This record gives sequence, structure tokens and C-alpha cells, in this order.
Amino acid sequence: MTFGSNDNIVALAMGDPAGISPELTARLAALEELHAEARLVVIGDKRVLDGGAAVAGLRLEVDVIGADDPWPTGDRPLFIDLRNLDPSKVRRGVAALEGGRFALENYACALRLAKAGRAHSVCFTPFNKHAMRLARPGYDDEIAVSAEVIGTNASASEFNVLGEVWNARVTSHVPLAQVASLITVERVLRSLGLTHDTMRAAGFDRPRIAVAGLNPHAGDGGNFGREEIDVIAPAVEQAKAAGIAADGPFSPDTVFLRAKGGACDAVLTMYHDQGQIAMKLMGFERGVTLLGGFPFPICTPAHGTAYDIAGQGGANVNASRAAVLLAIALARGSARA
Amino acid sequence: MTFGSNDNIVALAMGDPAGISPELTARLAALEELHAEARLVVIGDKRVLDGGAAVAGLRLEVDVIGADDPWPTGDRPLFIDLRNLDPSKVRRGVAALEGGRFALENYACALRLAKAGRAHSVCFTPFNKHAMRLARPGYDDEIAVSAEVIGTNASASEFNVLGEVWNARVTSHVPLAQVASLITVERVLRSLGLTHDTMRAAGFDRPRIAVAGLNPHAGDGGNFGREEIDVIAPAVEQAKAAGIAADGPFSPDTVFLRAKGGACDAVLTMYHDQGQIAMKLMGFERGVTLLGGFPFPICTPAHGTAYDIAGQGGANVNASRAAVLLAIALARGSARA
Repeated sequence: MTFGSNDNIVALAMGDPAGISPELTARLAALEELHAEARLVVIGDKRVLDGGAAVAGLRLEVDVIGADDPWPTGDRPLFIDLRNLDPSKVRRGVAALEGGRFALENYACALRLAKAGRAHSVCFTPFNKHAMRLARPGYDDEIAVSAEVIGTNASASEFNVLGEVWNARVTSHVPLAQVASLITVERVLRSLGLTHDTMRAAGFDRPRIAVAGLNPHAGDGGNFGREEIDVIAPAVEQAKAAGIAADGPFSPDTVFLRAKGGACDAVLTMYHDQGQIAMKLMGFERGVTLLGGFPFPICTPAHGTAYDIAGQGGANVNASRAAVLLAIALARGSARA
Repeated sequence: MTFGSNDNIVALAMGDPAGISPELTARLAALEELHAEARLVVIGDKRVLDGGAAVAGLRLEVDVIGADDPWPTGDRPLFIDLRNLDPSKVRRGVAALEGGRFALENYACALRLAKAGRAHSVCFTPFNKHAMRLARPGYDDEIAVSAEVIGTNASASEFNVLGEVWNARVTSHVPLAQVASLITVERVLRSLGLTHDTMRAAGFDRPRIAVAGLNPHAGDGGNFGREEIDVIAPAVEQAKAAGIAADGPFSPDTVFLRAKGGACDAVLTMYHDQGQIAMKLMGFERGVTLLGGFPFPICTPAHGTAYDIAGQGGANVNASRAAVLLAIALARGSARA
């Protein structure tokens, strides 16, 4: 099935200007294969985009408008020029307040467009956590920012998506010392429910979710920790009783081998690196991060701002491309395709 | 350089009889490429070995002797028949006291041969932890057993070895909840020293060791935990001052990408799954576990007993073969070759 591109609008926010985000945004705007599927509405400063296009060696054809202008029809990408960053103030490879503020403004604009129904999904090129924190003290990740702008207190979660497997996690940006105390039946169940619902919305009829244990060898029958017995297994049983195709807990060091072998559609991990170590090894160049649980999909490449290669013209667009394609498919309800 | 096979003797203990160990032992004994490098001295029950050979579809040519017999010269593998397990008592796929006792007896015999200087290294096919525990209550891993039989209280540690990278860890078979409290400057330093020394003995002139952080994004400058700042970085600095080529701490979810790219020879991880998740994804079929810190190398395939495919003839010998080859090379002081 093909859609008219105006039936599927992706609001794409420019991320941190000191890294590869300007180059990636330009590369995305130039990808003709995307135009047939959806209309890109890019948000940022046209001068910064032009800098990215120059780095990428591309001539862009985009319709440039102001924030309050009506949108022209057509298939070409739209660029909403917020005129919010003078590129002469950007020092490549340096996290700065101005860059964090720029990324936050673009992102908030994209979220508001989607909230107002003018876009069907939101994407962004990489943010720099340090710059974001300079612009917004207390910033930890995109979930809190998104919830605030959208005005929701829905339970949201970060998913990492490769073609062959999804990864969700029960805890995320917390010290490892706190992880065990945060693993509760309620939290594991909530993550299973959110994973199930998000994957259903993405076109999986009955997503098979393998649940990782917390401890080495999944606790080895209680010898190296009891969370599997006391918490995770009961949560898996309750999820099964609720109709979720959950299974486990499995040994953390082999559960992704199961996934690679096709035995499941997703792995639920207990903490950040349990999943991230595996997902980055399996597909660093193509991994996508999805924020699930919001009223519309929000996608970004799983990699970072790559300050070390900024401005050199060699940024790999594959993960960003996969992020936009996933957002398009999710908005259509068919991410498996 | 080639060695006469009697200059490099590998004592190979048969592991758990209910899994793929008999088949793997038979496959190893039949690998002619090993005979040119070293002499295999296999320890177990000849009837169990014959069962493994039948499963593998192999005719073995080994010299069978009793435990106290003199060793015939020659290049063929020796088999020391302890007559310690009637194969009719083995139920495939079931962990049993008799199987654990069999593996322990074979292993102790192999360790004693090496301790007495009659073998230069020890290898074993996979043990089953549950069977070992039935035979020896309190069993957690091979290090304590080995130390007891050898009669040493030297600091020993488990290494996981792939061709391209070694992995050592500061903590191992402990609940995740305890890991953070076990990460001390002293322990990190000790692990770095042992890794350095073991790899030097294996032929690395100045092994480059990348040290993983403990927390997501290596603590993100203290936002998600302070162990990197308070413990790991100071330990790395002390190690550097002592002439060890250590570097880090690096973000746990990208440190193995560095290793894959050739930026280091080893990764020191803080806990079991931080390394095991990566190493198993990078080379499950060929990973080797090395117990380092003993007077002679002890190697085994990194995979387990594979009860699910026992007796079917399809066991992959690659990791076992790599384990024997690593033991041979370590005994010779040239594992890099």
C-alpha cells in the first residue's frame, strides 16, 4: 500500500549543531526514497541546515517557511526556519548552551506539531546530553522533556529497535547500584504491557517477548541472587495470564543469541547496559531508539552526536534513515513491513 | 617453530557425561592437527569415551592405560581410564550426582598431573554446575576447586578469550545487587595486574587493556553513579603509573565496539554479564574460558553442556578445539600466534 505523502507527515527536529546532526538532517532531506512515503517537515535554522548540506556535499531542494506561515502543498520537504541559531557561534565538537537550546526548541516545535495533529510522528537527529543539560538543568533523557511538552503523564519508555529484534528495559539511566532495588513485579509488568502495546501498534499481532534475568546465569536457581525467583518469574506468569506472549527469565548472556536466532521479537532487559551492549554490537550503524507510550511515535538514531567526526562529511545516515522509516511505518501501524 | 608432541602435554579431563562432553572429547581426540602440536592425555572412563565416539561417528585410535601405568611413547593420544562411570547409569540431559563426581575426579586427576609436571596445561570439556553441586556442595565455579586441588591460594581469575579480544572481570558469580559495593580500587588494580601478567605470559608484549565503567554511559560525569570518578579512574591511573597499558573507564555499551575495531587487546569488565553478553554475541561458537593465575594454564570452551542436543552427534567442536590450542600456545608462551 502506498500513501500520499501528505497522509504521513514526519516532523524532523534538528539536533545538536556541534556534531553530525546538521549533516544527517541534510542527508535525510535529500533522500528521495523518503519523499514517496511521507512528507518531511524539518525544523531548525536554515543557515545551520545549509552548513550541514555543504558538509555533506548536497544541494537541497526544500520549501522554506516561517513558523507561522501556511504550509505549501507538494512532495518536497518543508523547512520551518526558526532562525534560532547563528552558525558562526557553533564550535564543532564542543557541547554548548546555545546548541542545547537550539535542539530543545526544534524538538519542542516538532512535538507541538504532532500534538496538534499536523504531523503524524516526530524524529530528531542526535542530541548531546551535556549541551541539553546546560540549556535545561536536570535533563536526563528525552522522555521527561517530551512528557512535559506534550502535557502527558502517560507511562512512556525507550525502545531500541533493530530489524530483527526490539529491546525495552525496566530501568534506564540510573546507577547500577540502584538497579536491583528498582526491579519490582509492578515495574516488570508495566514494561511488559507497554512493550506489548507498542509492538501491537507497530503491527506485531502477538509480539513474543523474552525477559532477561537480572543476575549471572539468571541467578542460577537462587545461588547468585533471588530476583528471578521472587520478582521476574512471577511478573512473567502474570503477564502470560493477561495474554502477553512473555517468556523467561532467561540468562542475560544468552537471551540475545535467542533473539538473533529468531526465537523472539523483543527482549525485555532489566537495566540499560544489559540491552545496550548487545544492541550496539548487533547493529550500531542501524539501531533506532523509539520513545513509546506517547500519543505518536518519536524516533531517533541510537548513536550519538559523534563530535569526533563532525564536519568531515563522512556521517553514516543509515540509522537516521531507519529512524524515519520506523516513524513512518509506526504512524501507519505497520512497522514490521 | 614446531615442538615434539611430548614437549607439550595437555591433560584433558572429560566433563559432564549427560551433555555433549563425551562427544566433544571424542572429537578432540580424533583431531589430527592437534597431535602435531602436543600430546593429548585424556582422562575419564573409556566406556563413556566410546559412547561419545559412537555419537560422533568416529573410530578413535588412543593408547589406553590405567591411572598408575607408565606412559607409552608416541604421538597418539593417551587415555587414562579411571573406570569411574558405568555409561548405563548416565541419563542424557539430566544433571546427576554420578556425573558431577565423574567430572570432578577426572578434573582433579588432570590438575595433579600438571602440578606434578607431567602435563603442561589442563583442559576440560563442559561441566554442569548443578551436577557439580550435587557432587560437591558449595561448588560455584572451577576456581575454588582448582585452587584446592593444586594447593594454592594464589589470586586466580577467569578470562574469556576470542581471537581478537580477551575479557577479564573484576566480579563474577555474585548477585548484581552486590556488584557496586565490590568495585574497589584494590580489586580493579588486582584484576588489571593479573590480566597484564597473564597476557604477557601468553605472548603479548604490552597488552592494551580497555577498562569498562560500571554505570550507564560510564556514569555520565557523575550523573548516573560516581564509581567511575571515585574508584575506576584512580585505579586506571595507578595501573598506568605501574607500566600497565590500561585506559578508561569507557562507556560499557561501546567498549566492545572499540575492541572489535582493534583499539585494545583486552577489556576489563566490572561484572559477569557486562563482558559475557558481548563475548557470547561476538563468538559463541569459538569462545574459550581460561583460568589465569595458576601455575599452568587451564582452558575450557566457554559454552555449556548443551543438554538439549546431547547424543545427537551435532556438537560443534570449534570452541573446544580453540581451548586446546590456546592451552598449547600458553604452555609455549605464545598465545598470540
